[in-house]
Amino acid sequence: MRFDVLSLFPEMILEACNYSILKRALQEKLISINAVNPRDYTLDKHKKVDDTPYGGGAGMLLACQPYLDALKSINKCEKSKTILMSPQGKVFNQDMAKEFAQQEQLIIICGHYEGFDDRIKQLSGAQEVSIGDFVMTGGELPALCIIDSVIRLKEGVLGDIDSKEYDSHYDGLLEHPHYTKPRVYEGLEVPDVLLSGNHEKIKEYRRLQQFIVTKNKRPDLFEKFLKSDLNEFDLKILKQNNLF
Amino acid sequence: MRFDVLSLFPEMILEACNYSILKRALQEKLISINAVNPRDYTLDKHKKVDDTPYGGGAGMLLACQPYLDALKSINKCEKSKTILMSPQGKVFNQDMAKEFAQQEQLIIICGHYEGFDDRIKQLSGAQEVSIGDFVMTGGELPALCIIDSVIRLKEGVLGDIDSKEYDSHYDGLLEHPHYTKPRVYEGLEVPDVLLSGNHEKIKEYRRLQQFIVTKNKRPDLFEKFLKSDLNEFDLKILKQNNLF
Repeated sequence: MRFDVLSLFPEMILEACNYSILKRALQEKLISINAVNPRDYTLDKHKKVDDTPYGGGAGMLLACQPYLDALKSINKCEKSKTILMSPQGKVFNQDMAKEFAQQEQLIIICGHYEGFDDRIKQLSGAQEVSIGDFVMTGGELPALCIIDSVIRLKEGVLGDIDSKEYDSHYDGLLEHPHYTKPRVYEGLEVPDVLLSGNHEKIKEYRRLQQFIVTKNKRPDLFEKFLKSDLNEFDLKILKQNNLF
Repeated sequence: MRFDVLSLFPEMILEACNYSILKRALQEKLISINAVNPRDYTLDKHKKVDDTPYGGGAGMLLACQPYLDALKSINKCEKSKTILMSPQGKVFNQDMAKEFAQQEQLIIICGHYEGFDDRIKQLSGAQEVSIGDFVMTGGELPALCIIDSVIRLKEGVLGDIDSKEYDSHYDGLLEHPHYTKPRVYEGLEVPDVLLSGNHEKIKEYRRLQQFIVTKNKRPDLFEKFLKSDLNEFDLKILKQNNLF
């Protein structure tokens, strides 16, 4: 899968991809990341990419020409999606990560502290995507979050390191608590059942913990889960514990 | 304000802070960022920081000792808050950014693709914070998003560059569209009212656009806004346009 990122700070994008899983996925050519600087495409003789807003107001705005010309310079794959990072976008979630991971190419347009001329949104045909209901100084870090969450869904990227189906948000629930050695740390003990070797009991215990954690921490997600198609295993545990 | 980040990839944290607004805020000593590697605190002779999960299962878990000892090594300010990046946490938003910006110190514990031994959460007293309902390979990028959104609220960081009160999410609404030169780009014109020089009209137009954009893109936020304490100016525009 190929990522093309339009950013005034292309080195920031490339440097952050130089660690851990992202680095390995790049080395193994499971993904490629290309950063394009709209400043390299501006026709302005002072290399400007922004200008003052019509109608007045503080701040500068990113102008159409450098961004749209930079976008045109990118070779498009057949299965390609273009998104624009914006606090006004649809809020990114795991379903969108799965959808993006189906593409051959994800093109990401990042602003930086300044807003976009609205016509960039219209003419690029990009889907506006927000990382959440908060404001940042630029689209680079949100873009990197999206790249990270998408690549980990691609075949071969995580290898045996992790098991995606136990992740939080995989089936709409949060994870159960995990414990590793030592058995007792500052007086806190690992629950006995995890030491029992009884795999059926451990499975049930962990599933119940997922229900309890989700109900306590994210009642919105738990409500949604209860309304979904529940299998017999889940139904049994839910009913035994008066959660359904 | 001081940020202390516990991460197995401290260079990734520091490098990403070397750009634009974050870089300037550091240079002007408006903030400081300290990255601590739990690997430097492990008592394991092979420098391990993780181990297999009790009860079986794929993947490794970050162990108590290196993380809790690394945490203890950090000098705590009087107004200090400790958070732990986790997909199970409370979802970060602008209100939390404002709350964090009131602190003298924010300590952020990052995992990396592996889960935490649950006792790290219990013994650190950290608040679990999630960047959103999606899964990532590590807590570093989410931590950086939080740092970015918090520092831009600190006095002096943005200077005159931006005007926070026009931001999306500032008062629960999304931003109105912005336009800069040229007046016509690929057939798309800047709305006439923005060229009129009539400041009162421009103000009303922009506020109406905020209502329309928010209603269309984030009806959940618009509903919430309508239920809030509305001022006369907003009420007038809402009623005139049959939005209230």
